[in-house]
Amino acid sequence: MQPWRFIRITDAALREKLAGVVESERQRTAAAMDQRKSEFMRLKVDGVRDCAELIAVVLAPDDGTVFGRRTMPDEMALCSVSCAIENMWLAARAENIGMGWVSFFEPDDVAALLRCPEGSKPIALLCLGPVKAFYDKPMLENEGWRKRESMDVVLSENQYPIATDERR
Amino acid sequence: MQPWRFIRITDAALREKLAGVVESERQRTAAAMDQRKSEFMRLKVDGVRDCAELIAVVLAPDDGTVFGRRTMPDEMALCSVSCAIENMWLAARAENIGMGWVSFFEPDDVAALLRCPEGSKPIALLCLGPVKAFYDKPMLENEGWRKRESMDVVLSENQYPIATDERR
Repeated sequence: MQPWRFIRITDAALREKLAGVVESERQRTAAAMDQRKSEFMRLKVDGVRDCAELIAVVLAPDDGTVFGRRTMPDEMALCSVSCAIENMWLAARAENIGMGWVSFFEPDDVAALLRCPEGSKPIALLCLGPVKAFYDKPMLENEGWRKRESMDVVLSENQYPIATDERR
Repeated sequence: MQPWRFIRITDAALREKLAGVVESERQRTAAAMDQRKSEFMRLKVDGVRDCAELIAVVLAPDDGTVFGRRTMPDEMALCSVSCAIENMWLAARAENIGMGWVSFFEPDDVAALLRCPEGSKPIALLCLGPVKAFYDKPMLENEGWRKRESMDVVLSENQYPIATDERR
């Protein structure tokens, strides 16, 4: 389907506006958190202003494809875009380039800034570029926000895993 | 978030039931097509019965995570699962093992067969195993169903691409 649209942000004023949209959402996310608000606000959650390349990824409007997505049209298009982003992520990492997927934004605000057509939806702001170092573990694990699931939570045979979810 | 649940299908009777669900949806997809119905039905669209390993992937129920998904909770969870599947796909391909992502099914039917909890959603039946050969181009391109987009349809600077969509 190739429902992905990659938009390279080269206009400094536009980047600054997008950074503003992300900062607003960061404040709203903090407000929506019951606990650890201040801890959350100390986390470095985006490189929107600092990264070498900022690339927005937008899900294209539904093109009416039936093949393989009659029962889950929106889901399958989004899956396609995600796979494209993951390929880019791995390709970047193989070149020792870091990438961060920022999803702190109101899609409508980003859509307005990028003049996205009706029916499309921004799903990522990708911050791409050289980094000082890579985390040895996912940042949220390092910072004590999440733990890796045990295998019996995520993997099973012939039926949905019945192991207790140990995340929280 | 790790919202992915991988379910290995080792029970032959269960595999046969899943194949039946896929076949039913294949018929319904053909019925929903205006043209090329019979051509569609001749395409080999699944290896559900033949593949070495059949693995169902299910999106776990919403765990309430706010971090990075306040504005797009369902989308971001699905993106996570898709990235996990893409990693698996590339890892398989690097080992010369083929993988097909079958999405021809009614999610509720698969959920019932795999005893998935309320709020979860099957998104893939992965057919994994040795293959005789790999396509030199995507099968849908080889068979004249789709064409690769030109770069100016999928890539632009500072605003959504304005190039005419050349797919159809």
